[in-house]
Amino acid sequence: MSELIESHADLASLSKEERLARMRHSAAHVLAEAMVELMPGAELGIGPPIDTGFYYDFRLPRPLTNEDLAWLEERMRQSIAGHHPFQMASITKAEAAEHWKDQPFKLDLLSELDEGNVTQCTHAHFTDLCRGGHVNDTGDIPQSFKLMSIAGAYWRGSEKNPQLQRVYGALFETAEDLAAYEEHLEEARRRDHRRIGRELELFELVDEIGPGHVVWLPAGATIRRELSRWIEDLEIEQGYLHVHTPNVAKRELYVRSGHWDHYQDAMYPIMERDGEEYVLRPMNCPSHIMVYEAAQHSYRELPIRIAELGDMHRWEKSGELTGMSRVRIMTLNDAHIFCADTDQVALEVENVLRLMEHVYGVLGLKNYSYRLSLGDPDDHEKYVDNPPMWAKGEDLLRRVLTRVGLPFTEAKGEAAFYGPKIDVQFETAAGKDETLVTVQVDFHLPNQFGLEYIGEDGARHQPIIVHRGVISTLERMVALLIEEYEGNFPLWLAPTQAVVIPIADRHVAYAEEVAAELRARRLRVTVDSRNERMQAKIRDHQLKKIPYMLVVGDREAEANAAALRVRGGENLGAIPVADILARLVTERDTRALVP
Amino acid sequence: MSELIESHADLASLSKEERLARMRHSAAHVLAEAMVELMPGAELGIGPPIDTGFYYDFRLPRPLTNEDLAWLEERMRQSIAGHHPFQMASITKAEAAEHWKDQPFKLDLLSELDEGNVTQCTHAHFTDLCRGGHVNDTGDIPQSFKLMSIAGAYWRGSEKNPQLQRVYGALFETAEDLAAYEEHLEEARRRDHRRIGRELELFELVDEIGPGHVVWLPAGATIRRELSRWIEDLEIEQGYLHVHTPNVAKRELYVRSGHWDHYQDAMYPIMERDGEEYVLRPMNCPSHIMVYEAAQHSYRELPIRIAELGDMHRWEKSGELTGMSRVRIMTLNDAHIFCADTDQVALEVENVLRLMEHVYGVLGLKNYSYRLSLGDPDDHEKYVDNPPMWAKGEDLLRRVLTRVGLPFTEAKGEAAFYGPKIDVQFETAAGKDETLVTVQVDFHLPNQFGLEYIGEDGARHQPIIVHRGVISTLERMVALLIEEYEGNFPLWLAPTQAVVIPIADRHVAYAEEVAAELRARRLRVTVDSRNERMQAKIRDHQLKKIPYMLVVGDREAEANAAALRVRGGENLGAIPVADILARLVTERDTRALVP
Repeated sequence: MSELIESHADLASLSKEERLARMRHSAAHVLAEAMVELMPGAELGIGPPIDTGFYYDFRLPRPLTNEDLAWLEERMRQSIAGHHPFQMASITKAEAAEHWKDQPFKLDLLSELDEGNVTQCTHAHFTDLCRGGHVNDTGDIPQSFKLMSIAGAYWRGSEKNPQLQRVYGALFETAEDLAAYEEHLEEARRRDHRRIGRELELFELVDEIGPGHVVWLPAGATIRRELSRWIEDLEIEQGYLHVHTPNVAKRELYVRSGHWDHYQDAMYPIMERDGEEYVLRPMNCPSHIMVYEAAQHSYRELPIRIAELGDMHRWEKSGELTGMSRVRIMTLNDAHIFCADTDQVALEVENVLRLMEHVYGVLGLKNYSYRLSLGDPDDHEKYVDNPPMWAKGEDLLRRVLTRVGLPFTEAKGEAAFYGPKIDVQFETAAGKDETLVTVQVDFHLPNQFGLEYIGEDGARHQPIIVHRGVISTLERMVALLIEEYEGNFPLWLAPTQAVVIPIADRHVAYAEEVAAELRARRLRVTVDSRNERMQAKIRDHQLKKIPYMLVVGDREAEANAAALRVRGGENLGAIPVADILARLVTERDTRALVP
Repeated sequence: MSELIESHADLASLSKEERLARMRHSAAHVLAEAMVELMPGAELGIGPPIDTGFYYDFRLPRPLTNEDLAWLEERMRQSIAGHHPFQMASITKAEAAEHWKDQPFKLDLLSELDEGNVTQCTHAHFTDLCRGGHVNDTGDIPQSFKLMSIAGAYWRGSEKNPQLQRVYGALFETAEDLAAYEEHLEEARRRDHRRIGRELELFELVDEIGPGHVVWLPAGATIRRELSRWIEDLEIEQGYLHVHTPNVAKRELYVRSGHWDHYQDAMYPIMERDGEEYVLRPMNCPSHIMVYEAAQHSYRELPIRIAELGDMHRWEKSGELTGMSRVRIMTLNDAHIFCADTDQVALEVENVLRLMEHVYGVLGLKNYSYRLSLGDPDDHEKYVDNPPMWAKGEDLLRRVLTRVGLPFTEAKGEAAFYGPKIDVQFETAAGKDETLVTVQVDFHLPNQFGLEYIGEDGARHQPIIVHRGVISTLERMVALLIEEYEGNFPLWLAPTQAVVIPIADRHVAYAEEVAAELRARRLRVTVDSRNERMQAKIRDHQLKKIPYMLVVGDREAEANAAALRVRGGENLGAIPVADILARLVTERDTRALVP
């Protein structure tokens, strides 16, 4: 026997979050109601609220179509207009099993519940097994919702279970909020580095090579090369010593560094042969420590800044990999600065922050901020218990950030276990807040490896290591730049910088001459002599986001000129080739941003 | 009972090789005779002739010294002067076992012989277990020999057996030959890239990272970077498309390419986790084929030249590794050219040969030659049985070599199993002939991977791959260049290009100014403001083989000049800094060789 449960929620008194969760959960019920009407044999999975709306999983006799979505959405709007109350009832587990005997997934859910009563929720003529958390009636659900998409999903998320069809809905309290969300989605889709990377043939992921193992195609490898050389040269100018160390080392190196104990789960498995054990390196620190240890050092040489574009390997779950922004093999713009004392640490951290500001300025990045990540004096499990050390380190980083004049936030409990750090937080195109790079002050590894330098007093002292990145991994930075630029790379990074387009076949020879002149100044230029209409060629190259098009015909050939078109569509008319060359070389060499 | 064997060799009638082998083997007996006199308890191992002389292994109660070597050599000269005949005798195995009862290694040798008689050789009062192959008496051994060195060696070459002391002797027929050999050894030692690499802090091998895993220290990494960027830029100018592909791929990729079946022994072991199997890549070909396969190709695009400075991994036995010239992880200057037909192959091979000539010319390499490596029509086991294909391929490469005007030799039976190739043979500082790089024509992998392009006829065709290297691996090329230059790198490759040396403390500020001027033109410059005598500083930097030293004092500061000293020792006197700058920049940018 079912027993009715009376409950009336005062929605206005709830937090917005709780109210939205109830609306979204209730909307999922309404979706299931419509689905059972559309396909009476539908087997029901679960239908929870999510951050942006709700979903419901079904096993259906046929794949859903977009027409189905439109029909379901319309039916939902009618049910909402009907103001059907949601009524909770309590029944015994046995009664529920009888009720759901034709619904295998509901029976599966029931089998996991303790003995005793379970609750169900009914609205209109539809009943669902449910813990509750609804609005009072369907009329409390706003019409500012939309069924967004259909996706495949395994029952309980396991590939061993049947595959279901999941219907996603977006739901917000107001039409404005829904529109803003849709705009955000469209923006994220337009900027998505995976889509742009495919269209511009920048990179690809090949199943036979492995998930998260990025293949940089020629165009992407060009961007990577330009970025790499630029940052290398900048760092060398700043006194960094670039090295090149192996991607594979004996397991015992990482036992000594502590990675084997603390980080093994994120590492590729061991390679064992002839009694030797090797692993792909998870981080570059131990390699750079080996470089430091290659010679004895005096205080006169410090700080020593060891830098490398070094490959790292992380065993991420294949389901968590995303394009180039989350991969398994990555090349980090890494450096370890061996300092004599905290005064040197402060100076070096300051230089790192200035280098960051310069680099992000040249790249035109704006959506980032600095965060001082502190320890937690009350958490002795997570953090080394040494209050004076923490106070000193935190104070040092705070002073440096202030001196450089950078705004920053502070976050308790975000430090590394051995010390505070500065994080650079970026907002991705999809709106997520992510740590791009960090500056860490490390007293731990110098101790672990027993590092030394000879001080002015002739005695042995322990250096302090500053770990730092600036442009993060090349994979992640290029993913970020693709999204930032929407594929419209500034000239110095653009894989193809200009295309020369002859108007007719008789202009091909002149087009090749112009291209040769540009190439002699190391510009990356192609000639499009395909048998296509000029307008079609221009459209193609605009889609490929090539910065400049030089159209050449009789008049241009005569004047040693070209009609210059800019990626955005602007036609600057006939310009002498020498002037075009000067314009492009200046734009490239100053690393000018796209206006 | 021993039975004497009469034998008299007419040494003059033997080949020089056979005569030398007998002299060297006999000298080993004389060495053992002397050793038994020096240390009556010496346990004898074996004493064979080798290419340059002989050695003998002993277990001795104490380590040998250089004084021992001098004493032994003197005793050997006396024994040679004594003209003692070598007399062979045949005895039963049982008699031999009795004779050698105190010599465990001889007993070990005896235990492996068949039953029956064994032979022994006696001269003076010394007897050895021996198969024969001597001169007639010790007087036939020339005095043009020398005991060279003492080394450790395991009995029968196994680490599980006792360690013995090995005495090496050099022996030649004439004093001139011995002197030439010693000069060659000295030359090889002077040029040895391991010694120079250590002295100039170019690279190191760290036990915790692994044998054959090179750590490029800042100075070596600078050379590596300059070489890498230069060859990349050259190749890009020539129409190569540089890519960047992962060092790790799924095992199945190499199953498909055939490497897993044919090459597995030279590969690092599998990494297996969550049902996925990965291996470090043994060669770049399959990765570049994946790049080719990323898009469909038309005949218009061919040839497509995919290039990469790609890491490869080879499991060499740790005992066979040598400095940077034989390593386990190496970066190959690799490219795969996908051609439509053999005409394109011929043109591309020609371009590769011209690129090689240019590159080796810039690097100043002379000790190399081209070899056309042919198949063997009689060897159906080693080579694909397709005579017309072989004839066509060999003829094509022969014609190209001739057209480019390069002298070459031909070597039957040196081809790859699937086709002929051109090898570039280098002579190392140690005098060994080695293949540095090859150009291969490959019909095999395109078939294995089912590669295609769309022809002018609209139908699918199979491309042909040209595999080619130019500067080999960076590891091997830098090893070779170190030996070629004896560490005196041309300016563009020199890790530190100039040092400014202030004469007194009051000149440090001016020295820093001069250095800053040079650095502004991207020259790699240091200032030596150590508290040392100027002559000592100059000597230090000469030992470090730094191309230029700029000495600055009062007069130089006044004249905005520096006294310029060249690495070789020449002092060019005071020169205006602007002129020095112009000289260095020109020398660097033209990649001038050291005269």
